[in-house]
Amino acid sequence: MASSKSKVAIIGSGNWGSVAARLVASNTLKLSNFHDEVRMWVFEETLPSGEKLSSVINQSNENVRYLPGIKLGENVVADPDVESAVKDANMLVFVTPHQFVDGICKKLVGKIRQDATAISLIKGMDLKPEGPSMVSKLIKDSLQIDCCVLMGANIANEIAKEQFSEATVGYAENKSLADEWVRLFNTNYFLVSAVQDVAGVELCGTLKNVVAVAAGFVDGLQLGNNTKAAIMRIGLNEMRAFCKMLFASVNDETFFESCGVADLITTCLGGRNRMCAEAFAKSGGKRSFDELEAEMLKGQKLQGVLTAKEVYIVLSQRGCLQMFPLFTTVHHICTGRLPPSDIVRYREHANNSALVNSDSNMVPAALPAIRSLRASRIQVQDSNNVGQCMTALPGGLSCVICALSTNSRCRNIPAD
Amino acid sequence: MASSKSKVAIIGSGNWGSVAARLVASNTLKLSNFHDEVRMWVFEETLPSGEKLSSVINQSNENVRYLPGIKLGENVVADPDVESAVKDANMLVFVTPHQFVDGICKKLVGKIRQDATAISLIKGMDLKPEGPSMVSKLIKDSLQIDCCVLMGANIANEIAKEQFSEATVGYAENKSLADEWVRLFNTNYFLVSAVQDVAGVELCGTLKNVVAVAAGFVDGLQLGNNTKAAIMRIGLNEMRAFCKMLFASVNDETFFESCGVADLITTCLGGRNRMCAEAFAKSGGKRSFDELEAEMLKGQKLQGVLTAKEVYIVLSQRGCLQMFPLFTTVHHICTGRLPPSDIVRYREHANNSALVNSDSNMVPAALPAIRSLRASRIQVQDSNNVGQCMTALPGGLSCVICALSTNSRCRNIPAD
Repeated sequence: MASSKSKVAIIGSGNWGSVAARLVASNTLKLSNFHDEVRMWVFEETLPSGEKLSSVINQSNENVRYLPGIKLGENVVADPDVESAVKDANMLVFVTPHQFVDGICKKLVGKIRQDATAISLIKGMDLKPEGPSMVSKLIKDSLQIDCCVLMGANIANEIAKEQFSEATVGYAENKSLADEWVRLFNTNYFLVSAVQDVAGVELCGTLKNVVAVAAGFVDGLQLGNNTKAAIMRIGLNEMRAFCKMLFASVNDETFFESCGVADLITTCLGGRNRMCAEAFAKSGGKRSFDELEAEMLKGQKLQGVLTAKEVYIVLSQRGCLQMFPLFTTVHHICTGRLPPSDIVRYREHANNSALVNSDSNMVPAALPAIRSLRASRIQVQDSNNVGQCMTALPGGLSCVICALSTNSRCRNIPAD
Repeated sequence: MASSKSKVAIIGSGNWGSVAARLVASNTLKLSNFHDEVRMWVFEETLPSGEKLSSVINQSNENVRYLPGIKLGENVVADPDVESAVKDANMLVFVTPHQFVDGICKKLVGKIRQDATAISLIKGMDLKPEGPSMVSKLIKDSLQIDCCVLMGANIANEIAKEQFSEATVGYAENKSLADEWVRLFNTNYFLVSAVQDVAGVELCGTLKNVVAVAAGFVDGLQLGNNTKAAIMRIGLNEMRAFCKMLFASVNDETFFESCGVADLITTCLGGRNRMCAEAFAKSGGKRSFDELEAEMLKGQKLQGVLTAKEVYIVLSQRGCLQMFPLFTTVHHICTGRLPPSDIVRYREHANNSALVNSDSNMVPAALPAIRSLRASRIQVQDSNNVGQCMTALPGGLSCVICALSTNSRCRNIPAD
């Protein structure tokens, strides 16, 4: 009987990892189909006291380094050896910085259970010109196992305090597996639901940071809630368009979930991306992000600024900059090419090809054919990756934006 | 030639009316198919100086009472006689408090141009048990003319300062008419787009206030951005569900427009509904809304509290309270039946029928058949007004919530 129970391992023990372990451990105690014990892999550190972090966690039941003051649950066991942490587990929760996933997976090949399955709680990914480096895909391909994602408006410290919040599980095909992840994470203060859209859910967790940078600019310029709400809305729609451009399977409903609009809101209200962008705009762009990161984030790089650059490269290569004027303008402001005050003039800049071409790091827009059919409308054909187009056009051209809006006019293109 | 030009009248001259007049007047000067002059009906008042408001507006080109310090444009002409204000106009912009529309329309029957058409900028409506009193419908039926609506994240004073914002025009069928309204209002700092969904656009402008009350409770309880974002998201989805319950024609895309998510965000960040609800929650519900309105709003009634009550009556009559646990909980908190802290326990209360039935003002749920098919799922059949259901159920029952979500489980119903 016991062997049919699921056993959970948490791979990662930072702030969010510790909170995830605590959430999961409260449920494995209650639910009969899970083993009580939750093993948490700890990247070993020696604390100033000379003690090992994993030992202190096991003695005190607290992650004194990354989640001090919060008991994790007696059934959480810290393990400094990742192979040992996962060896009995069939449910693997990945919650490390995204840079570490590749190395961890390589280490785990052949060391996990045959029936293991994974979920990634990791927000942030590299968007390479050849496509996004989805963490879920990396895990899936490396370990040859199914990998769901869990994203949402999840500020770890607020969830640790059991303040009400929500999350979204994105799954590929296996609905019953998704339901199992929902059962594992769902509590009365942390509501989890599942949608069949791994790509949409996972990309939201990365792209929202670009919008948070834009929202931070608005805050720094003290432009008021009207403007901030408008920029957030436009950002949400560019997130939708970008996701659909990369993956035709992305579902509009995903953006109404916690991973979509709610995570966007929380990130644009608080968060380091918004905060640093606010300081940047207040300085009129005179202080660089490098300088602000050194001062405000102790040198950590700001995810939103990195992602804005990566988005820009992807769009540039695909010849789709015109379709994403807000994302494009955020990048130009971050690099100092435009002043922060131009965030609300975003529509004017995306069509400025001189500005686009002056970026010597960029590959010229070549692959997709961009054709302006009418002054007020630009249609894009991009061989494989366009969304479904509502407008029938001559030559079978499709418009990324039309596919997303019932509007008569692409709002991203200046009016004629 | 001149007779083919459109002529605009603004019916109303409060804060938003004056800003609308200024927006429109800047465009009629620029666009060749509009008469320059914009006539603005002013509900005449005698100022403390003894002068008439309309005279002062025409002398100073400023609405010194409702938009001091802002020039309206030389081509705005204040007119204290509503019949005279509209008599040459074919484009009528309604922007009065909603209580006045009926009386104004009655006065205007037979006094407007044959080819006149209207738009309503009026947010807030009465939601009566027999259906919502849509302002656009009142105008349409009274005057027998087409009536569009314009809604969005529109804080009048921010638009008066030409801070970047957006709006949505909702139209019924006539797309070219909608485009004409867009041309009339759109500027480089006020982006307007059109969607074919009058009901969705107009209802958003009313329902968002209920969500703002919920967001204010979260602020008063100091629960953090995670919780606030979650409550806003759930509110947005109950807005969608409510609109679709009343009008099957409502389009999901509408909620991605300025009138939807952006207006919701701006109203939940600032605004009097949020502010009073915050004060209410801070007092632990000990100070009544009547008392707070008297103190903070000089006795004006809070739209969100009124609308929450009206929504509750509509839902109660239709037997749909279980489908709208957040809206229902907001009403119970406003009336003091539940403490403000229960906003995050909303799922527990909507199913509490004792609580529902204890409201002696409510008509018992009778008309629609509510059937619980499974413990974790409630299906509703409401003869005419259900949305399209994605789930095929025995007996042709439809589920309002299923129609809105790709989730496997109604999130509004407590998990089993």
